[in-house]
Amino acid sequence: MPIEPLPEVLVEPAVRLALLEDLGRAGDITSNAVVPADLTLSAALVARRDGVVAGLDAAILAFRLLQADVAISVARQDGDPVAAGGTIATVRGRARTILAAERVALNFLCHLSGIATATAALVAAIAPSPARIVCTRKTLPGLRALQKHAILAGGGMNHRFGLDDAMLIKDNHVAAAGGVTEAIRRAKSRAGHLVKIQVEVDDLDQLDEVLREGVDAVLLDNMGPDRLAEAVRRVGGRAVTEASGGITPDNARAVAASGVDLISLGWLTHSNRALDIGLDVPASAG
Amino acid sequence: MPIEPLPEVLVEPAVRLALLEDLGRAGDITSNAVVPADLTLSAALVARRDGVVAGLDAAILAFRLLQADVAISVARQDGDPVAAGGTIATVRGRARTILAAERVALNFLCHLSGIATATAALVAAIAPSPARIVCTRKTLPGLRALQKHAILAGGGMNHRFGLDDAMLIKDNHVAAAGGVTEAIRRAKSRAGHLVKIQVEVDDLDQLDEVLREGVDAVLLDNMGPDRLAEAVRRVGGRAVTEASGGITPDNARAVAASGVDLISLGWLTHSNRALDIGLDVPASAG
Amino acid sequence: MPIEPLPEVLVEPAVRLALLEDLGRAGDITSNAVVPADLTLSAALVARRDGVVAGLDAAILAFRLLQADVAISVARQDGDPVAAGGTIATVRGRARTILAAERVALNFLCHLSGIATATAALVAAIAPSPARIVCTRKTLPGLRALQKHAILAGGGMNHRFGLDDAMLIKDNHVAAAGGVTEAIRRAKSRAGHLVKIQVEVDDLDQLDEVLREGVDAVLLDNMGPDRLAEAVRRVGGRAVTEASGGITPDNARAVAASGVDLISLGWLTHSNRALDIGLDVPASAG
Amino acid sequence: MPIEPLPEVLVEPAVRLALLEDLGRAGDITSNAVVPADLTLSAALVARRDGVVAGLDAAILAFRLLQADVAISVARQDGDPVAAGGTIATVRGRARTILAAERVALNFLCHLSGIATATAALVAAIAPSPARIVCTRKTLPGLRALQKHAILAGGGMNHRFGLDDAMLIKDNHVAAAGGVTEAIRRAKSRAGHLVKIQVEVDDLDQLDEVLREGVDAVLLDNMGPDRLAEAVRRVGGRAVTEASGGITPDNARAVAASGVDLISLGWLTHSNRALDIGLDVPASAG
Amino acid sequence: MPIEPLPEVLVEPAVRLALLEDLGRAGDITSNAVVPADLTLSAALVARRDGVVAGLDAAILAFRLLQADVAISVARQDGDPVAAGGTIATVRGRARTILAAERVALNFLCHLSGIATATAALVAAIAPSPARIVCTRKTLPGLRALQKHAILAGGGMNHRFGLDDAMLIKDNHVAAAGGVTEAIRRAKSRAGHLVKIQVEVDDLDQLDEVLREGVDAVLLDNMGPDRLAEAVRRVGGRAVTEASGGITPDNARAVAASGVDLISLGWLTHSNRALDIGLDVPASAG
Amino acid sequence: MPIEPLPEVLVEPAVRLALLEDLGRAGDITSNAVVPADLTLSAALVARRDGVVAGLDAAILAFRLLQADVAISVARQDGDPVAAGGTIATVRGRARTILAAERVALNFLCHLSGIATATAALVAAIAPSPARIVCTRKTLPGLRALQKHAILAGGGMNHRFGLDDAMLIKDNHVAAAGGVTEAIRRAKSRAGHLVKIQVEVDDLDQLDEVLREGVDAVLLDNMGPDRLAEAVRRVGGRAVTEASGGITPDNARAVAASGVDLISLGWLTHSNRALDIGLDVPASAG
Repeated sequence: MPIEPLPEVLVEPAVRLALLEDLGRAGDITSNAVVPADLTLSAALVARRDGVVAGLDAAILAFRLLQADVAISVARQDGDPVAAGGTIATVRGRARTILAAERVALNFLCHLSGIATATAALVAAIAPSPARIVCTRKTLPGLRALQKHAILAGGGMNHRFGLDDAMLIKDNHVAAAGGVTEAIRRAKSRAGHLVKIQVEVDDLDQLDEVLREGVDAVLLDNMGPDRLAEAVRRVGGRAVTEASGGITPDNARAVAASGVDLISLGWLTHSNRALDIGLDVPASAG
Repeated sequence: MPIEPLPEVLVEPAVRLALLEDLGRAGDITSNAVVPADLTLSAALVARRDGVVAGLDAAILAFRLLQADVAISVARQDGDPVAAGGTIATVRGRARTILAAERVALNFLCHLSGIATATAALVAAIAPSPARIVCTRKTLPGLRALQKHAILAGGGMNHRFGLDDAMLIKDNHVAAAGGVTEAIRRAKSRAGHLVKIQVEVDDLDQLDEVLREGVDAVLLDNMGPDRLAEAVRRVGGRAVTEASGGITPDNARAVAASGVDLISLGWLTHSNRALDIGLDVPASAG
Repeated sequence: MPIEPLPEVLVEPAVRLALLEDLGRAGDITSNAVVPADLTLSAALVARRDGVVAGLDAAILAFRLLQADVAISVARQDGDPVAAGGTIATVRGRARTILAAERVALNFLCHLSGIATATAALVAAIAPSPARIVCTRKTLPGLRALQKHAILAGGGMNHRFGLDDAMLIKDNHVAAAGGVTEAIRRAKSRAGHLVKIQVEVDDLDQLDEVLREGVDAVLLDNMGPDRLAEAVRRVGGRAVTEASGGITPDNARAVAASGVDLISLGWLTHSNRALDIGLDVPASAG
Repeated sequence: MPIEPLPEVLVEPAVRLALLEDLGRAGDITSNAVVPADLTLSAALVARRDGVVAGLDAAILAFRLLQADVAISVARQDGDPVAAGGTIATVRGRARTILAAERVALNFLCHLSGIATATAALVAAIAPSPARIVCTRKTLPGLRALQKHAILAGGGMNHRFGLDDAMLIKDNHVAAAGGVTEAIRRAKSRAGHLVKIQVEVDDLDQLDEVLREGVDAVLLDNMGPDRLAEAVRRVGGRAVTEASGGITPDNARAVAASGVDLISLGWLTHSNRALDIGLDVPASAG
Repeated sequence: MPIEPLPEVLVEPAVRLALLEDLGRAGDITSNAVVPADLTLSAALVARRDGVVAGLDAAILAFRLLQADVAISVARQDGDPVAAGGTIATVRGRARTILAAERVALNFLCHLSGIATATAALVAAIAPSPARIVCTRKTLPGLRALQKHAILAGGGMNHRFGLDDAMLIKDNHVAAAGGVTEAIRRAKSRAGHLVKIQVEVDDLDQLDEVLREGVDAVLLDNMGPDRLAEAVRRVGGRAVTEASGGITPDNARAVAASGVDLISLGWLTHSNRALDIGLDVPASAG
Repeated sequence: MPIEPLPEVLVEPAVRLALLEDLGRAGDITSNAVVPADLTLSAALVARRDGVVAGLDAAILAFRLLQADVAISVARQDGDPVAAGGTIATVRGRARTILAAERVALNFLCHLSGIATATAALVAAIAPSPARIVCTRKTLPGLRALQKHAILAGGGMNHRFGLDDAMLIKDNHVAAAGGVTEAIRRAKSRAGHLVKIQVEVDDLDQLDEVLREGVDAVLLDNMGPDRLAEAVRRVGGRAVTEASGGITPDNARAVAASGVDLISLGWLTHSNRALDIGLDVPASAG
């Protein structure tokens, strides 16, 4: 599924930061010492495992920021599947700068493709259920926009981007307000007309109370498939239903079968495994 | 093992960035709507699993940057073990600001404690071998200094921090130089007197060639325990030996038994699992 | 109405930028030359006209960033009314730094209080109608969060904060999609579960088409009170209704009488008049 | 009147900030959902009212930063008049990026052209008087350089850019120094040879005292035309004379007739009205 | 001569940048390994040579940014003389942080005190001439405000701070305008009322032409004392006179005797020698 | 000796900062007033003295950031010698922007070429000794990477780049640890495998103690040639030897004759003299 890349103004600060982190104060002293200054290199970003691509723009930018006229040829786009051994893109430029940018480019590409790949696996695992896979705010600091974009690349959907773009009333809010009904009423009286309200629900009695007030969505926290199914039944279409907590690739299909609209998983962004992607330099390139 | 915290000037930019990412343009609209403005809250950062703490300074800073006079009481320091159910720190301040900072604080603390925890597990797995666990440059963009600090918290050691603080000659460098001997000579002629040189070695013949030139360290890539042992024997103390590639908690002990000095693992920083830590608010706090 | 201040991490960058803009490379050369170094000053931020306060945090921060221990006494909070001659806050500190911070503090306070004041006037003008006054994205570059906060201080509500937190389908989107029905369908298929969809409607036929698809809100663009009333009638509570375009203090009451839920005005943020507030130094202070 | 554009290094930070403010963490989710990815659009920046253009560089940069190869055709430059219905520039590029940049581009262009337009109207109102229209430091935070440039585009002149590039002795300085004579003497003894000194004068006796010391300019604060004329007579060409306070389009001509050299107006930058400019997409473009 | 410190908002970015430059990604690994974590240290900033202090605020900030509660005791202020062996300030705090901040603090203090010291020597060399020592725009990148402040600390005066705060017409401008008369006329017609105009003059004929037009100041470039005296005679008080080019401590007195008002020296800021200042730790402190 | 330029991502922030420092809020008001807008200029960066070039990338970037399509022709690269009168590079572009960038470009080029020139002179002075000239951390704030690169351009070698990339045990560390032996043992137990350890040694007894522990390098502080020779003899190749303190162009040859490996000089970066380089505009260019 082709998705719109993030605007470069959003991506570039992260890539600059990562390059500065890696180049430090002296740059790539190994390549500068060992690799001839005038050597040109073609190299390919090649998947070592099956997966779904994400983060390609950031990876390409890592090369471009070190050499403005590097030649890039893109074979896969964010959201495209790639098989083990498949080429994602090729770069051609000065050997010194390509080797200097390699690790930063891969750090973005492997991490974000890992997220897209895991998301896509979950999407496949629950097919043809209409449920959607969604992310959370449990993201790695500084990488939220990129990680959320990788979720889209994997076929998932985005939850809130931050504390400011929707209201999610959780247990601590309920406690502070003195009850869920009061919390919802306060939320409604303050929410802008484009702000949706979702409430975290831990048990079915609380769900009934929430439904009496009416909200846009409920987050059904840590419920097994059976209780989820009962919750979905009680909601009866009056709110979007989201299952959250303890969901793994193994139980996702069962969760989806409960009829929930959304399945959210924090580990997609906070504990995911990178997709193994390498930079291959043809033997004759040296 | 108590370790020196990172200077706040290094940590603060990452925390500010993460707060801005989460607060967006309007801040925590849920808490502002639902939680009374004058409500004060005590809350505890509590581990849900056994682990080792890292990232506490960043977590505390997330609260402090939202409320300068928040009261913090620290029970564990970076590098300290914590058992499931154990309290790492408690915070007391305005309920709105504590709830607004919660996610950012946890995103740092869970991710970095996850790294420290996995590192400590590896350190334990190979004990009492003298080998050390080390990280790589396969870090998440923008988080290198913090992740490397978490490795220390877990009892590991740091590899290069970037391309500029040591020379690591890899296969592409060798190819570009026309051979490993030539690559090493070029590196030595350019390296400053405080710059060490390490060479990646894929087979034992290449190792002999490297040893003839003499380097500070060799990276023995993707070798099984037997070949590692043979490599260690050939090195004979003339260089630091590092095993790298395909090392897991399961085979780490066998790798260590080969006699290598260092065992490096990229997944510690690029594919690790967060330590589950939550913010508990006592029931009576509301 | 007391409102939660914006977190200082959101406000401080704007205040630092404004101070650097004004201090340039040499600071306040007049005060440094003319005012004794050890002179202490008490000064009051005093309204010259009736209004509603907003931007007080930014104003105070301007003083604090020049002198950390300046003493501030706050008499009004953001959202509080102030009468001509009324004191909003007093500051006491080194005369040189207070005079140096004065203009930056006032530039924030006058501009943002101007927005709050105009908003409050509109809120009063349409009372006791249930309609709410809302802002737009026609804000001044770099000041969006602060301006939107001032709208809240005046008793208004916020519209979208940016392109990313809700969908607003406008005429160009409709044209690009080949019709409003198709545009809405595409939007619904891509919108996250916490993203609301609003559609701009220029005539009543288009309104019917939009209502057939069903959306969260409609923006009724440039319609007079009579057509607005007809539109509200047709909507019949199935969507939030927003009147936009050509609304002034003079016709706001008539617009509100049409029954719309929201009245949005771009000029509140792009063409507003500052509230006249000055820094008064008691005669005996010199 | 053609004027030199501000260097892009001064303009770009403001435009990036404004884009980030509007794009947030996810970009233009409406256009990405509704507008085909491959649709190309031509659009025109068209004035809805007569005015004078300013801020065109910032507006163009908003498009360019979202799409580097957007095609721009400029019909008016900063400082050029434009009639209602007149095209200022046309842009051609990806529909998604043009719609995403639209609001930011217009926010700069409308605000700054509003300043240029009001300035030009004042310049016209006082013609053929030799008096010049000047701005103040009552600018909107973060926008000083851009606003001051817009004043030039409208045919006005710039006052101080900040506290550091000239000395302006005001009432509080005089009080702190213990008298205007002492204040001027201190200022002169500390001022660099390229720093001019201006003194705010509230009454004619004080003016005589100032003239005895001799300064580069006097700011005649809140005086009516008759007192201004008397002040100008007393100055007799020994200092530049500036009228300030309470000046409107209605009384500017009378003020100018008093013979003052400069007429300064804070509202030009703090309370001005935007020029109405829109982005027109030809009907066939979709 | 006590001088007003630069506002911390101007100084802090430079100090943060310098700390990040020195701490890199891991901080002070030597002190962290060798110095006990709980060791407290008192240390003194001690001059090794006679000189004049400048940059003390930046030096202190280097310590404070690493440890907020470091205790500072200031014995000299910017602008104060210090004799070899004299203590400028003492700091007391954690040994690790004091040693980590030492080099950055000294890099600011030694460099800026070097400028103040050389300036003061020149001021003394030309006494009791009324001529003043001034700096230029030949400053080191990123340090202009700090270097110009150090000139003040040494008893000198500041020239332009940048291209924007005064007009200095040089030979290339004259050539581009087609003559110095035309250049001056253009400058006058565009200069704001607080902008002074200075013209660089290479020979006496050109000086006469400049004086016919009338300007605020002339820069007499590369003239010996005799020609300078003749130039001063011709100017006859109608403009400030500045001698520039080839001035050294040896010939400054002769230059001053020519009667010029100002003597400018680029090397004060671009080729100066640091004042030798060290951080002394009493023997018993360890 | 051709050296690899620093990556532009490292250089650009310093150049932007310097441009903003010089352009202030209004840009080059002299050129904008005096120089025709459409005048094109060719200008040459010409050495006024013999020297070695460094900082050319920064100088060129100063022009490019003001005019993206300026034409640059490079005659010398960083590390190349240039004779008095020799052209380093020529630039062709708008006259206004070339004159606006001139000072910033020269400030980088003259300062950094001054460092390279002094370094090269020292390298020549000690030839054909195998000793190398090295720099220190006594660099000017914000310019460390650029200054260290200039040392390379002059044929020198770099010492530590910061506190984090090698361990240098100095007298205060020894005192804090309670002796040099203990200090070295602590350092070794904490140092990563790519971190070298150097110890500052003030007398020969201490040297023996250091050698017993074994370190990578010793810094022989403030010793004359005879004691240096004795120290080198005692070291006997077991560590790199560095002479430091009080070394000048006059005594460098004698120091080198002592047999030390490295000669470090702080003044190369903290008290150096700029190379005189100017921007020449051919007479016919105007």
